[in-house]
Formats: sequence, structure tokens, C-alpha cells
Amino acid sequence: MSNFFNGTAFPDVSAWNAFSANELERNSEHLSAEDLAAAWQNPSANAYLYQNGDPVLKTVDGGTTAEFSLDEVANLRADTENGIYLGDRNGAPALAAIISGETELPEPYITLDMRSVVTSGSVAAHQVAALGHGWSMLAWHKNHRFCANCGSKTEKAQAGYRRNCSSCGRVHFPRLDPVSIMLVVDGDRCLMGRQPHFAEGMYSCLAGFIEPGETMENAVRREIKEEAGIDVSAVRYHATQPWPFPHTLMFGCFAKAASTNITMDETELEDCRWFDRNELGDMLTRENTLKTPPPMAIAHQLIKTFYDFSG
Amino acid sequence: MSNFFNGTAFPDVSAWNAFSANELERNSEHLSAEDLAAAWQNPSANAYLYQNGDPVLKTVDGGTTAEFSLDEVANLRADTENGIYLGDRNGAPALAAIISGETELPEPYITLDMRSVVTSGSVAAHQVAALGHGWSMLAWHKNHRFCANCGSKTEKAQAGYRRNCSSCGRVHFPRLDPVSIMLVVDGDRCLMGRQPHFAEGMYSCLAGFIEPGETMENAVRREIKEEAGIDVSAVRYHATQPWPFPHTLMFGCFAKAASTNITMDETELEDCRWFDRNELGDMLTRENTLKTPPPMAIAHQLIKTFYDFSG
Repeated sequence: MSNFFNGTAFPDVSAWNAFSANELERNSEHLSAEDLAAAWQNPSANAYLYQNGDPVLKTVDGGTTAEFSLDEVANLRADTENGIYLGDRNGAPALAAIISGETELPEPYITLDMRSVVTSGSVAAHQVAALGHGWSMLAWHKNHRFCANCGSKTEKAQAGYRRNCSSCGRVHFPRLDPVSIMLVVDGDRCLMGRQPHFAEGMYSCLAGFIEPGETMENAVRREIKEEAGIDVSAVRYHATQPWPFPHTLMFGCFAKAASTNITMDETELEDCRWFDRNELGDMLTRENTLKTPPPMAIAHQLIKTFYDFSG
Repeated sequence: MSNFFNGTAFPDVSAWNAFSANELERNSEHLSAEDLAAAWQNPSANAYLYQNGDPVLKTVDGGTTAEFSLDEVANLRADTENGIYLGDRNGAPALAAIISGETELPEPYITLDMRSVVTSGSVAAHQVAALGHGWSMLAWHKNHRFCANCGSKTEKAQAGYRRNCSSCGRVHFPRLDPVSIMLVVDGDRCLMGRQPHFAEGMYSCLAGFIEPGETMENAVRREIKEEAGIDVSAVRYHATQPWPFPHTLMFGCFAKAASTNITMDETELEDCRWFDRNELGDMLTRENTLKTPPPMAIAHQLIKTFYDFSG
């Protein structure tokens, strides 16, 4: 018996992150227009709905739901023509569609921005994940109606998991933008910065899009060097988070500082400094003048993990 | 002093992978059309060139180079108009451009497909990485000449790190497609499969594109369930690899099997089975009837790591 996987536990820390509790069984490669049409006729189907980029919710006994029956979808005049098939949960299809901004939502339906949906805590985790999943795909469809290769109109295919160009023959798949986000650690302290648009007093991890031709580890090194002038030795992967603003995939890492003098990129940041571990406890509760991002952000989870497991 | 990063070594195993040794300092966010124009006039600049999708090479004393002087770029009539700025190495700009397929290359210039460039071992690792970097970006430019949002023509911006649509105002960044690739481990054995188009006798790790709304770990679980019907418990990140075919980012993982009966997806695979660890040594040398992918592939590194560190 091999000891390759023994001796160390590998908890799925990505499961700590908002938007990670996706319970939809996908079969995306094998879905067809017929499957999509049948799902919109399936009495057990549910749909996630959006208006002006925000999820639609309804208060029900014991909480808030983002899953609507097909009768409700029809009453709310959702654009099922451009709707998509996300996957199945307990055998029931989950669909997603947009309601025109001109439609007035009747009671008890409301919209709430995605961040508030998460922080409210009133929507089940699997629904939060499906809401993010649906929005990443619908936003991609909205912004990819034309073929980047030839400029012609494209058409939804594979029940929403693809768009086809009938003019040049290209197929287009949903775009996901990988980002590295990292907490730089130097013994008992960690590096955080703030951008001018952040909420007052908020400091967070540095982050940036991974670029062509670099590993995740080298992207971490480059970002920290560019934004803070700090050199990094070891980089340790922590967790991923699907981040539906609109279709980012966050790769959270810890990075070990190999230098400590900060040279800040003033076009990106308005402050960047080392924080002692004992400053972090109050920042994580967010009741302090200085605070971390909220728990829904992977940055919070990185900072909390460092706080909990160091010292 | 914190022990957060102590007690365990975090070697950068991504550095074991082909295309990972990128030495170019990017400054992509701050590059302009003026910087690009100046680089094409800089006597210390080098360019990476491609024809029909393959890198251009030249044999020189002591090896093969893919870096060409601007005089050579002019002689070879590379399309500098659509050329891009990758970054700087030792202060010298590195550029990339395409040579028309109709241009006959004079001696001593040749083209060689990207995989053969790597396996030949004759091109320096930092050049191999730059070749991959350049091709991922040039292929994106070639296939993204139009705005996916409105269908208008787009224009190169930020020295090649962006395209702008002057019609609807959208900006477009190079696309990177994250893929999870995983070796499933069950004690002393691991799971590999083969697709019909593989070289004879070759078996490899399972893999698939990460989709919107899922973590890397859940993408691993879904792919293994879809392709082999196997359940997975722990997932452990190993390394990333930039994979320029044309702009993929591979996330290599180990996954611990929680079930062992294989139900193969026959539309994807023509075989899938468990391999005992003692079968792997001969497969890794690739002199056997059955073999792994070559060392340039992250799949090889995953299999080799399991072989070296298990048992």
C-alpha cells in the first residue's frame, strides 16, 4: 500500500469559499438544443433569473429562494429564448434566464446584487453557487454575440455551453479568466494593500490576472514585484474560488517574502504595508477602523487561514 | 517568529514543466503603442518569429536559437505591423511576429513544430517559454480581430496585451483557458486512459476544461466522474503549466480514488484502466509498448512524481 496520499490531510479548502458549493451535475459536452427545449418543458425544472445583472429572489417560509418554477418564469416574462441549461440537481434541470430591465417585478419578487445575496446568508449555499454559475455564463453570452474571428453573429449551441459561428465555422466556449490572489507572509506579518476605490479602511491581498506564458507561481511573483517591489521565494497554493464578476476564477496562494522593503505601484495602490498578525484579529471581525474584505472573498479566507494557523 | 511557512518545503514544481522558464519581465499594464514602436527600433531587441503556426529557428555555434535580430526580422519580411511586445530580458525588448506562409525561408532558417522544439532539447529553456508565450498571444490576436460584443473590427493596444473596440468601447484581454489535469491514485496504482487519436500504446492522465461556477477541485471530481465513473475524495494541487496550443493553462493535480469500478465514457476514451506502480517505470522511459506522454507534458510529470514518491 502506497503512502503517497497518506500522512497529510488534504481538506478541500476551496469548499470554504462563497460560490463553491455547486451541486449541479453537468453533462455539458453532451447537451443539445433538444435537451434545452425539453428542460423548459420539464415540470420539475427550476430557473435562476436575473434582472439588470442582479439575481431575482423571493422570500418564502424559512428563508429566501432564487429557484423559480417554470410557471413563475412565464409570469415574470423571462427571456427563455436566450436561456441556458446549467445542469441537474436531484434529477431536476436547473436553467437560467434574464428578465428585461423594463419588466416591473410584482411582489414578492425582488432583485438583490450578487454580493449582498451572499452576505445576507439567507440563500442556500448551493443556490448561491448556481447563481454565480448562471451569471458567469449569461454574461458571457450577452457579451459574445459575435464571432471574434470573423465578426458574424454567433448562435447558442450545446444548450448554452457553446456558441457557434455558422459563417466561419468557429466554435466558442465560455471564457474564464484565471486570477492569482496572494497573501505574502514574512514571519509573523503579512502584506496587504488598498486600492483607491476600496471601502474606507479596507486592506486586502494583492491580485492580478495570470497572463499567457506564465505559471501560477510566476504570476504570483510578478504581481508582487510589480505592485509592491517585494521578492518572493516559495509559493503555496491554497484554494480556488469561482468569482462571477463576471467570469473570473481566483487562485488563492500564500507567498513567502524574500525581501521586505516595499516599493508601491502608485498607479494601482494608494497604500501597501506589512500587518502584524495581532492586528488581523480585529480586522477580520470588520468592526475595526481597519478591516479585511468580507468572508465571501477568498482574500478574507487567506488572511483568516494565516491568522488561525500561524503564531 | 511564525511557523506558518516552516516545517514543509514548497519547491516550485511548476518549474519542472516545459514552457515554465519564462525570464521576460513584463510591464504589460503600462505598455503603449509608443513603447512597441520604440522596441522595434531598439538595436538590442530580439524577436521570436513564427510561420504557419510553427516557431522559426536557426542553428548557431553550440545550439539552436529562436531569437532574431531586427535586421534578420527585416530580411525575413516578418509582419511587424501586427507584431507584439512580450517583455524585456536583461533590458533587451523581446518581440514576436508572424512571417507569411508564402515567404520562402532562406538558409539557415527553418521552422519546427512547437512540440519538436521542446523535445529536441536544443533550444534554451527561457526561449522555449518565450516561444510559447508569444504564440499564445499571436494566436489570440489572429483569432480575435473582431469584437465579440458588437462585431466591429478591433485594434491592437497596450503593445499587444489588449485589443480595443472603437465602435462599442469594449477592451479585450488575451484569453487563457484553465484546464484541470489529474492523476487519480488508489494506493499503489493510478488511473490512466487513452483517446483514439493518441500515439499507439500511449496512456495519459484524464483532463478537461474547468467550467464556469466550479472550483479546480470540483472540476477534477466532475471530469473523473464523467470520463471514468470514479469518485474522488482528496484533491491535491501539484503544478501549473502554460500550454501554448494555443492558450491553455494546465492545473495538474493528484486525486485520491474513493471508488474503483471504472465506467468509461466511450465517446471520449477508447480505454481506461488502473496501472500498477511497477508498470510505470518502463512506460516513463517510453521504450515500452505502453508508454506515458513525453516529459514536456505535465501528465508525464504527474505520473513521474507518483512513481518517484510513492511505494
